[in-house]
Amino acid sequence: MIKVLGHKAPDSDATGSPVIWAWYLNEVRKTPAAAVLQGEPNTEAGWMLTRWGVEKPEIIADLAAGEKVVVVDTNNPAELPASINEADVIEIIDHHLLAGGIKTKTPINITIRPLACTATIMHDLIGEDLAQAPEAIKGVMLTCILSDTLEFRSPTTTAHDRAVAEKLAADLGVNIPDYAAEMFAAKSDVSAFADDALLRMDSKEYELGGKQLRVSVLETTAPQVLLDRKDALMAAMPGVAAADGADEVLLFIVDILNEQATLLVPNDFVKTVAEKSFNATVTGDTVLLPGIMSRKKQIIPALAV
Amino acid sequence: MIKVLGHKAPDSDATGSPVIWAWYLNEVRKTPAAAVLQGEPNTEAGWMLTRWGVEKPEIIADLAAGEKVVVVDTNNPAELPASINEADVIEIIDHHLLAGGIKTKTPINITIRPLACTATIMHDLIGEDLAQAPEAIKGVMLTCILSDTLEFRSPTTTAHDRAVAEKLAADLGVNIPDYAAEMFAAKSDVSAFADDALLRMDSKEYELGGKQLRVSVLETTAPQVLLDRKDALMAAMPGVAAADGADEVLLFIVDILNEQATLLVPNDFVKTVAEKSFNATVTGDTVLLPGIMSRKKQIIPALAV
Repeated sequence: MIKVLGHKAPDSDATGSPVIWAWYLNEVRKTPAAAVLQGEPNTEAGWMLTRWGVEKPEIIADLAAGEKVVVVDTNNPAELPASINEADVIEIIDHHLLAGGIKTKTPINITIRPLACTATIMHDLIGEDLAQAPEAIKGVMLTCILSDTLEFRSPTTTAHDRAVAEKLAADLGVNIPDYAAEMFAAKSDVSAFADDALLRMDSKEYELGGKQLRVSVLETTAPQVLLDRKDALMAAMPGVAAADGADEVLLFIVDILNEQATLLVPNDFVKTVAEKSFNATVTGDTVLLPGIMSRKKQIIPALAV
Repeated sequence: MIKVLGHKAPDSDATGSPVIWAWYLNEVRKTPAAAVLQGEPNTEAGWMLTRWGVEKPEIIADLAAGEKVVVVDTNNPAELPASINEADVIEIIDHHLLAGGIKTKTPINITIRPLACTATIMHDLIGEDLAQAPEAIKGVMLTCILSDTLEFRSPTTTAHDRAVAEKLAADLGVNIPDYAAEMFAAKSDVSAFADDALLRMDSKEYELGGKQLRVSVLETTAPQVLLDRKDALMAAMPGVAAADGADEVLLFIVDILNEQATLLVPNDFVKTVAEKSFNATVTGDTVLLPGIMSRKKQIIPALAV
C-alpha cells in the first residue's frame, strides 16, 4: 500500500492532492494507495471533505523504513516526517521551490511546476483519465485550486490554474463565487483554535539575517476576528518560537476580499523587518500592507532586515 | 540567452539533449537559448553531431552568477559547474536519482522520469510540436536513445524508450541495427585517448565503505582493444584517483554486443569489491561479469565491500 502524503500543515491542497492522487493510483493505475495526513486538516480542508463526502484520511506520525510514499505539495524534509529519507519515496509532485533535502536511491518520477496549485499539476498528469473521476475528486481538485489562488486573487495564479478551475466548475455545475465564499467562510472560522495553534496553522520556516523565522499566514474573509485577538497572539509568539526552535514569529493576516495583509509587530525586530521588506511606516503594533496576499510570491522574496 | 547544459562527461545524451532542448526553446517557445558543453563530446557524440550536421556546442568552464540555465541529463552538483547554485537554474530535465544538492529560489519546472534517456522525456514534453522539428533534431533524439539503451540491450530500457526510438527511426527512414552499429563503432574508436582520459571518459563518483570511488564505464563493441591496454590503464589509476580526490578507480569495460562487462582488478580492494558485489571468483587482474551492462541498474546498486 503506497501512502500519499502532503506537508505538515494540512490546508486544502495538502489534504486534497493526496486524495486525488490516491484515487488515480487506485482506480487508473490499479496500484493500491491511500491518502494520509500529518495532522488535522484546517477548517477549510475539513469543510471540503464534508462537502464532497470524502472520508478524512488517516493521520500518521511517521513512516516506516522502506515504506513506499508519494510526496505531494512539498519537497522539503522540514515539512515531512522525520524518517522521510529512510522511507522509499517513489514520486514527488509539487509546486514549491526545490529545497534540496530529499535524495532518492534510484530515478523516480518528479514533477515540479511553477503553478499555483499541486492539484492543477495532477489535472495535467492525469489527462484524459480524469473523465473516469467521480464528482468528489473533481470537487476536491476545484477546491484546492480556488484555495491556493484565493479565488484567482493571489499573484501566484496562472492562466492555466484558472482555466482548469473554470472547466471543473462548469463540469460540476458549481458557481465559483458562491462556492469560494462558502470555502473562505469555513477557512475564516477559527474560533475553535488556541493562539499557538493559529500561529502554527499555515507556517513556513525561513532564515533571515542569521535568525530562524516562522513565517505564518492566516487567510481570512473576517480579519477583524483575528485582529481582536492580536494581543493574545503576540503574547503567544515567544512560547511558540522557543518550542519550535525559532527566533521570531511573523504573522500576516491576509484579508482575502480586500487583497491586503496586516502584519503583527510585537517588537523592534519585526518592526525593522516590516520597514525594510515592505517599505512600510510602522507606528503601532500592526502594519497594513496593501496588495500583499502571497507568502511565496510577495512575502518570502521581500524579506529583509 | 538561456544556456542548456548536461553533465561533465559529454556522451550522446549529455551532448544531444541540450541540442534538442535549445531547438525547442528557440523554435517553439520563441525563447533565445543555446546548447553548451562542459568538455569535448565523446567519439560517439562527436560522430552524432557530424552525421546530422549539427554544429558542436560551445564548451564552457563555468556559469556567471544569475545566468539562466536549463540543466539536463543530471541533477547532481558534482557533475555541474562549480557555480551552479549561484546561477539561475530555470528548469531541470533528467532521468537520474535525485542527488539532493540543487536548491532553487522559486518554483521551477522539474521533470525527472525513470526512463533510459533524457531525450525520451524531451520527446514527451515537446509532444505534437515535434512535428516542426528538422530531421537533425529527430536524428539526435534517436541517437541519444540508442546510445543510452545500448540499442535496447541495457536493462534500463523501457518499452516507452523503445517505442519512441522505433517511431523516430521509421520517420527518418533509418535502419536501427545498421545505424547503431555505426554509432557503436564510433564510440569504440578510442585510439586517440590517453589512459587517464579513458578512465575519466564516462565516470561517476560513488562512496562505498568510507572510500570515494570513481566508477568508470567504457561501452564498446571492441573490448579487446581496451583489454590490450589493461596494464597501462591500471597503472594510470592511482594518479587519476589522487588528482580527482578519489581513493580508487573501478573500470568496467562493457562489451555491448556480447552483453557482458570486464572489471579490471588492480589490487585487493577491487578484488574484494568484485567478489562481494557480483559474487565473482577473481583469479587474475580481470574478471568477466556476464549480463552486466548498466552502471545505474546493475553496478551501483550491487556495490559492496
